[in-house]
Order: sequence, then C-alpha cells, then structure tokens
Amino acid sequence: MSVIGIDLGGTKLISAIFSEDGEILDVRKVLLHGKKGNEVSELMQSQLKSLLTIGDSSADQVRAVGISVPGIYNAGSGTVWVPNIDGWDNYPLLSELSETIGGRKIDIEVAGDRACYILGETWKGKARGCQNAIFLAVGTGIGAGIMIDGEVVKGPGGIAGAVGWLALNKPYEDKYIPCGCFEYYASGDGLTRYANELLSLQPDYSGMFRTREVNAYNLFCAYDDSDEIAVQVIDNAIEYWGMAVANLVSILNPEVVIFGGGVFGEAVRFLDKIYQEAVKWGQPIAMKQVRLEASWNAEMAGLYGAAKLAIGYDDNLSE
Amino acid sequence: MSVIGIDLGGTKLISAIFSEDGEILDVRKVLLHGKKGNEVSELMQSQLKSLLTIGDSSADQVRAVGISVPGIYNAGSGTVWVPNIDGWDNYPLLSELSETIGGRKIDIEVAGDRACYILGETWKGKARGCQNAIFLAVGTGIGAGIMIDGEVVKGPGGIAGAVGWLALNKPYEDKYIPCGCFEYYASGDGLTRYANELLSLQPDYSGMFRTREVNAYNLFCAYDDSDEIAVQVIDNAIEYWGMAVANLVSILNPEVVIFGGGVFGEAVRFLDKIYQEAVKWGQPIAMKQVRLEASWNAEMAGLYGAAKLAIGYDDNLSE
Repeated sequence: MSVIGIDLGGTKLISAIFSEDGEILDVRKVLLHGKKGNEVSELMQSQLKSLLTIGDSSADQVRAVGISVPGIYNAGSGTVWVPNIDGWDNYPLLSELSETIGGRKIDIEVAGDRACYILGETWKGKARGCQNAIFLAVGTGIGAGIMIDGEVVKGPGGIAGAVGWLALNKPYEDKYIPCGCFEYYASGDGLTRYANELLSLQPDYSGMFRTREVNAYNLFCAYDDSDEIAVQVIDNAIEYWGMAVANLVSILNPEVVIFGGGVFGEAVRFLDKIYQEAVKWGQPIAMKQVRLEASWNAEMAGLYGAAKLAIGYDDNLSE
Repeated sequence: MSVIGIDLGGTKLISAIFSEDGEILDVRKVLLHGKKGNEVSELMQSQLKSLLTIGDSSADQVRAVGISVPGIYNAGSGTVWVPNIDGWDNYPLLSELSETIGGRKIDIEVAGDRACYILGETWKGKARGCQNAIFLAVGTGIGAGIMIDGEVVKGPGGIAGAVGWLALNKPYEDKYIPCGCFEYYASGDGLTRYANELLSLQPDYSGMFRTREVNAYNLFCAYDDSDEIAVQVIDNAIEYWGMAVANLVSILNPEVVIFGGGVFGEAVRFLDKIYQEAVKWGQPIAMKQVRLEASWNAEMAGLYGAAKLAIGYDDNLSE
C-alpha cells in the first residue's frame, strides 16, 4: 500500500506518493502564482488525480491522503481557514477532495502545517525517535508544532501552538494587537518592522538602510557588516527567540526544539546564541535536557508530515 | 473496591479511603511539625497502615494507593525529590510503602502535586469534563499541572509545568538565577521579595511597611488601604499572572486555567483583572475560549488527585 502527501504552502503546492516506510515514489511541485479560492483547490485536485492514477495502475494502492494547509483545519465542518489564500476563510476542502477520490476507499486527513512540520521531523528528521518535540516555525509569522507523548497537540479549538502571541516584555503596547508581542519583533515581518521603527527613532543613523530596502535578508547581510540597525534588530530577535525557547522548555520539558520557516534559513547560525539566551531563563534541568536544531529539510518537512498524517491516522488530529 | 489517596504537603499529611466514585469513606489529617527524612515516611506509613486495616475489614477492599508529593517522582528508581523536606533528596518512598502494603495485591502510584491538583480538579472540581486544563499553583513558589487531551503532561524528565521559570520581561537579570523571572515577582515569596526591593529603592516611602512585617498577607491587606508599596507589588504581580495565563493559553489552547496555592486564597478576587491583562496579550480566539477559575477546594484538590491517580492508573504518570 502507499499514501499521498500534499503540502500547500503560501506560494507553492507539493504532492507526492510515498511508500509506507516513507520513500517518495513520485513527486509534483507547482507554484501558485497568486491563485485564489477555487483555483487553488482545482490545482490540488488535479495533482491528487494525477497521483491517484499512478496509484490505481500500480501494485502499491493508495490507502490514505494527508494534506498540510498553512492555517487551521476545522474537522467538524471539513473546512479550512488559510489567511494567505484569498477566499479560503472557511473553505470546504474536504468535500471537494472527497469528490476527487470518488468511489475509492481512501481516508483523507487534513491538518495545519505546524502539526505536519513536527510530524515530518519526528518521522524522518531531527526529532526521530522523540515523543516530546517542538517545531518553531519563524517565517512571515510565528507558530509552533508541538508533540507531547507522541501526540500532536492541537487544543480543543485547534489553536494550540499560537506562540507568535507569547508575552515576553511588559508593559503591553497597542502595537502588539494584530500579531502578538513575540511575532511583532521576531518574525520575518517583525525584523523589518522593528528595523523601520528604529530608523524613524534614530535620525542620526546614516548606514546602508537609508538607501537599501529593509527586509530580513538584507538585515542578516548587514549584521555581518556590523550595521547598527541590523545589530540592534537581530540581537533583539535572538533575545526573544531565546526567551520563547526557554518558556516552551520550562512548560513542556521537550527533548528537542527545531527551528524552521523562512527566517531559519539565514538565522540558523544563531542557534548557539539562542541557546545561550534560553539557558539563562529556562528551568535549569529542563534546559540541560533539550537540544536546539535547524529543520532537517525546510522544503520537505511539511510534505513528509502530510504523508505521516496519512500513514499514522492519528485520531487526535482527525477529530 | 476502594482506593487510598495520600497528599503530602509542606506542613501536613492528609490521607483518606475513597469509594471508586470519589466518596471519602474515612480521612486522617496530621501536621508534620518540622519532621524530616524517615520521620515523614514513618508518619505516612502509619496513616497508610491504619487505612489499610479499615480496608481489610470492609467489603470495599483497597485495590490501589495514590500519593501526591510536593516535588518530583522518579518512577524509574521509585524515589522522590522534595526540596521542602530535609533528607528527601532522593528518598526511596516506593520501596518503603511497598513494605507497608505487604503481601496485599495493591498498586502504588506516586506523582508530583501539580499533576495531582489538575487530576483532582478535572475529576471533581472546576475542570470537570475538561480534557485540556491547567492548574496554576501560586504559593511559596509557582508551578503548573497541565492536562492535554485527558493526559497529565510530565515531560521526559518529569519537569514539565515548571512555569515559575517563565521569561516575561527582558532583559535578563541575575537575580532570577535561583527561581526564574515569573516566580521572582509573582510567587508568595516573590511578593515579599519585590516589596523589600521597592522599600530599599524608595527611601521617601513612609507607609505601614516601615514598621509592619512584609509578607503576602499584609500586602493584600495594605492593597485595600492603597498603600503605595502594596499597590505596586500587587499590580505588578497581576500583570505577570496575566502574561503567564496568556502564554499558557496561546501555546496550549486549554478550556480552563485554575488558580490555586497559598496566594489564591487572597488573590482570587483579582481573577477578573488577571483575565483583563491576559486578554491583551494572548491569542484572541484562544483567550475567548478559556475561563479562569479559583481552585474548587484548595485544601482537598491534591488529596482527590492522589485518589484519582490510584483509580485512573494512568500509564503516562506511572512510567
């Protein structure tokens, strides 16, 4: 038997057939090119159809499909909420994919990408063999996939892992309203936002960001040239990343915290500094028991997680 | 059949026989009076013996014993670490109680008090029917009992719930080394500590704490008289309690957070203010889904939790 994993990202869609032990038998990748609403679902259905045809004609029949979406899945209604895709506010993904499946006896499992990242990492990546592990996804926003005693934590409302909202520096400021305190400073958008805030507060600054575009990538480059804005922004983020790690470790005592998402990437070289910051704050024994890692495969962890969702048929995720 | 629950606190020992549905059939309570090492174990054994005798002569035979300790239980070695009892660094509690049990076929379960508090509250208290609930114990120190999907979270090292170490206000200060940032300001000892810190920083203050003893109880009384030290200390703690709630809710999306421990008590009247602080910081939907409660029964929640430990025989806790 085989399974299909589908990983919908903000800009691309990757799908593959997997053997039960996790070998990729066939893979498809396509860019979304700003598609929205139905168009995204049609793209997904067309990839699914094409992979099902392969499955139908092979000895390894497909028995389940797992889908990772960059948002929240409401299993009660079979709908998804994906803020970065227009028209996917409450989108009936399950019923549309069920139609594609047709009369075949194939289970469909859907979960948020945070859950799939940690499933991928515990199955094939840096958390293999771990029952207690956390994936900290730092991209445009910040979220976490949390596994405890072998089960992915989703929370009764499906919102668990919303760590972008961590309160890490009092007093409260109204600027945290749209995204939370941690995400305000330490997401990809946060780095840019805080740099612009500092630029407007430091009129004497005459460095490269008076002319160069402020974005996360340029900030990392400028950090190496000791640009004073970049140093303030990145050092501030390292402090926040460390505090967030410390809090997750003190609360949950995991074996590993894995950093992924668009920012890690570039920020992976700061893992030692992040640990040094975290170890100051966190419960000392728990901090000794945890290791920090970069994602095993930023491009594929979500896809593998989607396949594992199909293979594992985790009741906790399918409620 | 029946079970025995034993709740060891820092100053007293309570034991009871329970029917399977949670009715107390017989209860014993005794103060520790500064007992240490063996003496505490002997006291526990004598209560256990006395309750076993009742069980032996009744139709409701005892089938299991659950024990709550104010520290950490190492199930591998059957030893407990209880910082507030002299000589209980690595104390062989399980083997001593097994001897008391003798030839009877009775299971013994031991767990930390945080785990027992949340078990008691989900069984008989303010979290009845909840699968996802947190007990925040604010006494001399701060810790949390966390239940996710019906299982108590302990972490691979048994340290989960060490929320006194939450990082809530940067930059880091060395004074957090012994206990963590959250506990430094917002535990019972923390309230006193911060008040003394403010007293030394505010030489112009001429209020009641120039003569009256600084302790949590007096600070709560003085708060009502708008004493400026008390107001700063308590308002500061409310901010921290709110941030901690927000962080637990954003990470875990629980149905309820229950406040207990020596400080709540007095601080229960601030639950609304704590919620108002938390709702500013936390993930907005998750904050709408959670309610804050005071412990159902501060005196007995741990005892009921110990009994539930015996009844439920939770593999997760007995590893």
